Amino acid sequence: MIPKRVKLVEVGPRDGLQNEKTPIDAATKIALIDLLSASGLSAIEAGAFVSPKWVPQMADTDKVMAGIKRKPGVSYPVLVPNLQGLDAAMKADVSEIAIFGAASESFSRKNINCSIAESLERFRPVAAKAIAEGMKVRGYISCVLGCPYEGAVAVSAVADVAAQLRAMGCYEVSLGDTIGIGTPAKARAMVEAVAAVVPRERLAVHFHDTWGQALANILACLEAGIATVDSAVAGLGGCPYAKGASGNVASEDVIYMLDGLGIETGVDFAVLAAAGRFISDKLGRPPGSKAAQAQAARLEKAGPSA
Amino acid sequence: MIPKRVKLVEVGPRDGLQNEKTPIDAATKIALIDLLSASGLSAIEAGAFVSPKWVPQMADTDKVMAGIKRKPGVSYPVLVPNLQGLDAAMKADVSEIAIFGAASESFSRKNINCSIAESLERFRPVAAKAIAEGMKVRGYISCVLGCPYEGAVAVSAVADVAAQLRAMGCYEVSLGDTIGIGTPAKARAMVEAVAAVVPRERLAVHFHDTWGQALANILACLEAGIATVDSAVAGLGGCPYAKGASGNVASEDVIYMLDGLGIETGVDFAVLAAAGRFISDKLGRPPGSKAAQAQAARLEKAGPSA
Repeated sequence: MIPKRVKLVEVGPRDGLQNEKTPIDAATKIALIDLLSASGLSAIEAGAFVSPKWVPQMADTDKVMAGIKRKPGVSYPVLVPNLQGLDAAMKADVSEIAIFGAASESFSRKNINCSIAESLERFRPVAAKAIAEGMKVRGYISCVLGCPYEGAVAVSAVADVAAQLRAMGCYEVSLGDTIGIGTPAKARAMVEAVAAVVPRERLAVHFHDTWGQALANILACLEAGIATVDSAVAGLGGCPYAKGASGNVASEDVIYMLDGLGIETGVDFAVLAAAGRFISDKLGRPPGSKAAQAQAARLEKAGPSA
Repeated sequence: MIPKRVKLVEVGPRDGLQNEKTPIDAATKIALIDLLSASGLSAIEAGAFVSPKWVPQMADTDKVMAGIKRKPGVSYPVLVPNLQGLDAAMKADVSEIAIFGAASESFSRKNINCSIAESLERFRPVAAKAIAEGMKVRGYISCVLGCPYEGAVAVSAVADVAAQLRAMGCYEVSLGDTIGIGTPAKARAMVEAVAAVVPRERLAVHFHDTWGQALANILACLEAGIATVDSAVAGLGGCPYAKGASGNVASEDVIYMLDGLGIETGVDFAVLAAAGRFISDKLGRPPGSKAAQAQAARLEKAGPSA
């Protein structure tokens, strides 16, 4: 039942960095993305064309897109909230965009200031135009296992939004546990409910590690046949020292588990971990990945090699 | 297949604290153990009667055993390496001891300075005398998924030691991934191999979180029918800031997952987390448990309650 091959969608340069307080310049982002490309990842979320007032860390996405070395076979999606963002993405020669809705009404209203239905109506022309321009469109759903305002979220609400995003032409729908509150059986039940309306090969899972459950949740979803996993190198998006501020599950921890399970990913752990050390050094802290820290300790013990 | 009820064996006061560099006095250990008793845990490893030269943090185990409030129905095992340690345990009115062997020859020689076979011969009279005195005996096996000196460890070696510990009268054998290197499928395969020679209701799993895999590994072992899990409150035994120094899996993270899975444990998460905050404050750092940190952030946000 566990897939033989899993695709990792690296979201560190966008979902990760946009939640980091330390400003990171375009040159550093470009270097990070190029390192990630070298690791063998086939999808690296590179930025967002959103208002710089709302998300200052993403204000230089045009420079980032112009500066990276685009590796053949690798996709570099950017987040796009509206037609204006799509125009910017087209100017930047982006070939894949991501749009986003929530499974919780309260979160939708607080996060993007409109109802779920309104947000989907807003995204419909964006997706249509992007597809007409030959772009791929990815859909995100937030709060799939719980909402900071409402608490529990019905799996039927998640399935409903997923079906609508798929109907708009999203080739993949990423199910996000935005507040990292889910546990394995609930994650699996949610995925099964969504898989009843969107084929599971079109689904991705996106876990934050706030309550420490991300890797166990991913395992449960692999067992449900999910073969696409979002993660962020070095666990970007959460300071490992701050209370309750864990970010995305760390890509290194996911790859270490997948390697151990004998699942093909095409990703080289050592190169990925080097990318994580690079950006963590820029942020002035150790990587928020236990596997990366364990590997660093091992390398240190081994000493310089000839 | 997943058990309806799981027993947690809290190893923080022993396996955790013995690996902490900050000295902790007996009064603090007593307060910690009493808090843990209040959380609903039914097994709390309280100390070790080993040479204080080797393990200075455990030198006051007699004071600890004399000071704790023993709650009816709760077991307070102590680690005992030899007949001398057993005598000390008997003087301290201990009702359960733990003995320990390794699944790796190199680790056995480096850790306890004798072969696996010799170590088991040494423990045989200890177990026999303890049982004759009416004590329960628990067996630990270290390096069940890998050895820092040898690398891979054969599951047959683990099964062999487990069978011998069981034959000595151990009512439970705890399978320890001492270096936290295992991944879910390997953990499960190891457990299945051992379960062929020791009934799985006699087996416990003991994961360190060095490579971030502990919770996923525990999930895989639950799926294999294992119903006893060792863990340490606040992830004691590893400084969350030190490279590659993760300790035991945090009890709070395990309880959060088990609660989410609908598995009964009898443990109250909030009381357990309070015990973790108590000892973490004494160690001068945040708890090494993501669930505990997330809960603390939530409490802070909610503010003081009436």
